[in-house]
Amino acid sequence: MNTESIPGHTRAAVLHGALDLRVEEVPVTGPGPGEVLVAVEAVGVCGSDVHYFTDGRNGRNVLRGPMVLGHEPAGVVAALGSGVDGPAVGTRVAVEPAVGCGHCPTCRSGAYHLCPSGTCLGSPPTDGAMSGYRAVPARAAHPLPDTLPTELGALVEPLAVAVHAVRRAGVGTGHRVLVTGAGPIGVLVAQVARAAGAEQVVVTDVHDARLDRAAGLGATGTVNTARDDLPDAAFDRLLECSAVPAALWQGMHALGPAGRATVVGQAPPAVDGLPLALMQRWEIDLNASFRSAHAFGPAIGLAASGRVDLAGVLTGRFALSDAPEALRAPGADPHHLKVVVRPGD
Amino acid sequence: MNTESIPGHTRAAVLHGALDLRVEEVPVTGPGPGEVLVAVEAVGVCGSDVHYFTDGRNGRNVLRGPMVLGHEPAGVVAALGSGVDGPAVGTRVAVEPAVGCGHCPTCRSGAYHLCPSGTCLGSPPTDGAMSGYRAVPARAAHPLPDTLPTELGALVEPLAVAVHAVRRAGVGTGHRVLVTGAGPIGVLVAQVARAAGAEQVVVTDVHDARLDRAAGLGATGTVNTARDDLPDAAFDRLLECSAVPAALWQGMHALGPAGRATVVGQAPPAVDGLPLALMQRWEIDLNASFRSAHAFGPAIGLAASGRVDLAGVLTGRFALSDAPEALRAPGADPHHLKVVVRPGD
Amino acid sequence: MNTESIPGHTRAAVLHGALDLRVEEVPVTGPGPGEVLVAVEAVGVCGSDVHYFTDGRNGRNVLRGPMVLGHEPAGVVAALGSGVDGPAVGTRVAVEPAVGCGHCPTCRSGAYHLCPSGTCLGSPPTDGAMSGYRAVPARAAHPLPDTLPTELGALVEPLAVAVHAVRRAGVGTGHRVLVTGAGPIGVLVAQVARAAGAEQVVVTDVHDARLDRAAGLGATGTVNTARDDLPDAAFDRLLECSAVPAALWQGMHALGPAGRATVVGQAPPAVDGLPLALMQRWEIDLNASFRSAHAFGPAIGLAASGRVDLAGVLTGRFALSDAPEALRAPGADPHHLKVVVRPGD
Amino acid sequence: MNTESIPGHTRAAVLHGALDLRVEEVPVTGPGPGEVLVAVEAVGVCGSDVHYFTDGRNGRNVLRGPMVLGHEPAGVVAALGSGVDGPAVGTRVAVEPAVGCGHCPTCRSGAYHLCPSGTCLGSPPTDGAMSGYRAVPARAAHPLPDTLPTELGALVEPLAVAVHAVRRAGVGTGHRVLVTGAGPIGVLVAQVARAAGAEQVVVTDVHDARLDRAAGLGATGTVNTARDDLPDAAFDRLLECSAVPAALWQGMHALGPAGRATVVGQAPPAVDGLPLALMQRWEIDLNASFRSAHAFGPAIGLAASGRVDLAGVLTGRFALSDAPEALRAPGADPHHLKVVVRPGD
Repeated sequence: MNTESIPGHTRAAVLHGALDLRVEEVPVTGPGPGEVLVAVEAVGVCGSDVHYFTDGRNGRNVLRGPMVLGHEPAGVVAALGSGVDGPAVGTRVAVEPAVGCGHCPTCRSGAYHLCPSGTCLGSPPTDGAMSGYRAVPARAAHPLPDTLPTELGALVEPLAVAVHAVRRAGVGTGHRVLVTGAGPIGVLVAQVARAAGAEQVVVTDVHDARLDRAAGLGATGTVNTARDDLPDAAFDRLLECSAVPAALWQGMHALGPAGRATVVGQAPPAVDGLPLALMQRWEIDLNASFRSAHAFGPAIGLAASGRVDLAGVLTGRFALSDAPEALRAPGADPHHLKVVVRPGD
Repeated sequence: MNTESIPGHTRAAVLHGALDLRVEEVPVTGPGPGEVLVAVEAVGVCGSDVHYFTDGRNGRNVLRGPMVLGHEPAGVVAALGSGVDGPAVGTRVAVEPAVGCGHCPTCRSGAYHLCPSGTCLGSPPTDGAMSGYRAVPARAAHPLPDTLPTELGALVEPLAVAVHAVRRAGVGTGHRVLVTGAGPIGVLVAQVARAAGAEQVVVTDVHDARLDRAAGLGATGTVNTARDDLPDAAFDRLLECSAVPAALWQGMHALGPAGRATVVGQAPPAVDGLPLALMQRWEIDLNASFRSAHAFGPAIGLAASGRVDLAGVLTGRFALSDAPEALRAPGADPHHLKVVVRPGD
Repeated sequence: MNTESIPGHTRAAVLHGALDLRVEEVPVTGPGPGEVLVAVEAVGVCGSDVHYFTDGRNGRNVLRGPMVLGHEPAGVVAALGSGVDGPAVGTRVAVEPAVGCGHCPTCRSGAYHLCPSGTCLGSPPTDGAMSGYRAVPARAAHPLPDTLPTELGALVEPLAVAVHAVRRAGVGTGHRVLVTGAGPIGVLVAQVARAAGAEQVVVTDVHDARLDRAAGLGATGTVNTARDDLPDAAFDRLLECSAVPAALWQGMHALGPAGRATVVGQAPPAVDGLPLALMQRWEIDLNASFRSAHAFGPAIGLAASGRVDLAGVLTGRFALSDAPEALRAPGADPHHLKVVVRPGD
Repeated sequence: MNTESIPGHTRAAVLHGALDLRVEEVPVTGPGPGEVLVAVEAVGVCGSDVHYFTDGRNGRNVLRGPMVLGHEPAGVVAALGSGVDGPAVGTRVAVEPAVGCGHCPTCRSGAYHLCPSGTCLGSPPTDGAMSGYRAVPARAAHPLPDTLPTELGALVEPLAVAVHAVRRAGVGTGHRVLVTGAGPIGVLVAQVARAAGAEQVVVTDVHDARLDRAAGLGATGTVNTARDDLPDAAFDRLLECSAVPAALWQGMHALGPAGRATVVGQAPPAVDGLPLALMQRWEIDLNASFRSAHAFGPAIGLAASGRVDLAGVLTGRFALSDAPEALRAPGADPHHLKVVVRPGD
């Protein structure tokens, strides 16, 4: 490992508590055995990052000490740890934030995203990647092809989430697909569903401006559910991306016999009003998707070939020093879909 | 069709309203084109029959006029309608109560049990089979092998429900299966799950006597959930047969990563407390099974070979004239699992 | 049924024996109960038609008397038989040539294309549709949307074959797909595989001109296998569309672990050289697709939305009186992919 | 690690070349990091061992130097390597001979049995376990329950092969299953198929004595194919366990629509006579199974509960010093199904 050019310290966005995000000097650690060190160019801001920033917690995951934020990084491989034969130094990569322990029965079954002991970048207490450098397992670093700029590599993680969700939903050729919620995940899911053969992709939201944008990002139709009802038995698959239980129930009523509903948006612990008799009468299945597995490769392929438009989803760039502003942007300005923080600038 | 021996009238248990079940003379109709006429020997009493008898309704299905009860008949083919080439007159058969219209896209896809326009014996306004004779579609009459007495043929319908549920749950070799509820469906599901390769079949209930019986009918272990907690992440599949939402939530918490919960017991319209975050974190799927499809053949095979013990499930026999007593029996006497009414006696 | 405007006779291309195709007056029959009468505008010419025309047989199906050719028709509904409520008179439709008996266990399971007693248009002894009018089951007549000209409706049948084959192959998001054979089915399969999410679609053939054309019709890469070898373990799925066994074996060697090979082209009765040890070492599956089922709807959707280019596949039009020339065209002129005969002109 | 009681040397059956199997002193090596050392009690003799012994090769795997034979060991954990927390010293275990590298994409997908770089005990050049001690990866050592004697643990590997094959065949409740070949794998496959819900399990062979034995080991029926033909379209699944291509073709002709044939017996490199038109007309799938994955746990469960009879399959025991005789036994004495060598005696 040639570490001559690796500095001992770098700057990172460290969350000390709710609303207390500081850009600080931190030591560069690693790469350890099996790891590569990535010089981070851009990191996407996710809804879960906003939760940590705003509330100091995300669901059951609670911030208990200072932690570098960010789990959607892309950058350039700067050094290889021992026992690592690639990707080579200089390779542009998107980083998969959670790759499992690799040893437990769950990992060995192929479901490494469900690993009970696995960690995830930027999920307490594991430091994230909103930082000049971050060491990650070599298998987590996915090379980017020439047609995909590094900055858009920061959107590969949410795209992989969408790929995984569309698989969990079992979307196939000819399906009529309903996507509830026209946020960043919704428009990525819509694009992936269309690329997976869906015949119709109807996106719902309660804001016309968001629906107008979705119409250019995968949707073949839109419904403003604040104004219009969904048709009965009109869809084969539902992908719930709004994190609003009412949208899930509405959407399930719009499914036909043997339909399936997949929850993609972050789920609350307990939800009331499950239409169980409906699920039984029509054998409508309900599942949910968690992060992603084996999906970075396909996601990169979809983006690199232009079948999924990532540039259209990226609506804002922030310097590392403006990280707090980046965390506030999605909530403050409804025109934002996805913003990135650029530690490399 | 030789109809010489078919009487013009027969006796049937006709439900006129809640708690008003009368044994009356009714005309024998059919067999029409594509039908066979069955001389009914025995009819199982199901929880839904008890709901109609007690409340005049079952979920959204409401009794609006007199209706013959009963959807679990077995008997002997007495006559063939036009265009029918089997089963031959004299064949002992179990009758599938709902076989779909046969023409709609749902039926053509293979899912005839979900047919939007299909009828079901003994579901308003369609007369059931607690009657000396009942004409049914020829494809609904499944021949019984010599090793299966006709009377036990009346238990093939709930056994087919169990076969279908176990398929919906995707039970396979080596699975650890939890069955909540030790009623008639629970013990049939337990037996079928074991016959489908399950490694463990743990049955839960709140009554020790029911659990003791389940231990002889498929369960490899039992838990009285009034007294003991279920272990965490100990099961791969859950089949909910108690119709108690709390049992569903408890059971889902006992599932491991990538588990699946299947609701077999009759589902209420809306249920509170769905543990959606749990479903997402471990990608636990939730579905439900409705009646059955393509399951009578396998059910008959399981019973005829002795891999499922139907005789041990049958705890009571009633003459047709005692039909009201039969409808009260399961509620009045907790030792009952399944009772039959015998119109042929 | 208003039959005023239906003539008693029409002209049809009747095959009397090998190379003896005559355009003759034939009576217009039907529509019978459950049927619609279609005024045929265009009929695609398929490889099997060419076999009947050239050899008087296609595999085990032998012409034993005069038969109207053609199983890929599109046209306009001219009359409805009794008991039929749609598609309405005047509706433009593509016709599915084989829809099964609808009653046997195979049909009831959903696999109507495998019906042991089903007939197929233009397969002896069943008359085909290269005729002014043809009565067909109502469920075989699939309405065409405004964006799809009737003439291109004659290409929906081979597109449905491609949709079915891609389903049998289990092509999914991110797959690397190999298609052997750049004929009409090969280019349709390539387009459908891409529309179903395939990451790469590499088409092989031994003629550069055909490969050049495939590059504009779904292929992301091409290989001339007369000149270049296929890479090892480079693909996840193989769709064999050349009907050349050597292509199948070559293609199977190019599959990676857990790959799958699907034979779409017409299969010979017995094939030598199956690489069974390879199939076992890497658990590579082999299946084949037969006609199609439940695929006309998705096929129409793919074509109507422009995701599959049918116009680029259609290379020739012939009047009914020139039907013999149409049957010779694909063999005589290698530039042809797909030609249609137009009985309506 | 307490290695006080571990000797420096042990005796092993070392194959030096065809028919040259010597019982020799060899050093005890390991356990290395991540490994456990097993004191071997019994090792099953497999057909592949017989191939190495007889021919010095097994298919493409060629013996190039002395190698300890044996890949079906069971014994007692004698020591733990570094970083290993179980199974504890003293635990009785069956050993899985091939568990993959654990790091490549194939392993990470869950298919570790297909790992391109994985080794297998007793497959050149990797030493096997017909030895007093053998170090193996900790994840390869599967604890045996009290109801399963250690000696029978040596039959868990072929039982796991059967479990994996039955999964690959997709055997389910109600299936009619044909098993060709009544050897050790055939009778294990028959038992597992029955335990997985098969309605019928018909075993074929050309020796009545073997068929008689199969009738007590899972078969519900038998056919001597030297004398009798198989019925047409009578089965849903075929598991080919005879390694005779003619049996595969015969069996495939006995499958009905949408059937599946799975090759379990060792496959030759190229096979003539594949009935591809049959496969296409009825959409009969062909696959093969390779070793096993995720199957030791279920196999142990089936044996421990008595649903699979392993004792009835074990027909001979040999001391380590008689290992050459053990290798000759299956060929010399047709009454043998499975024999074990006991290095621990």
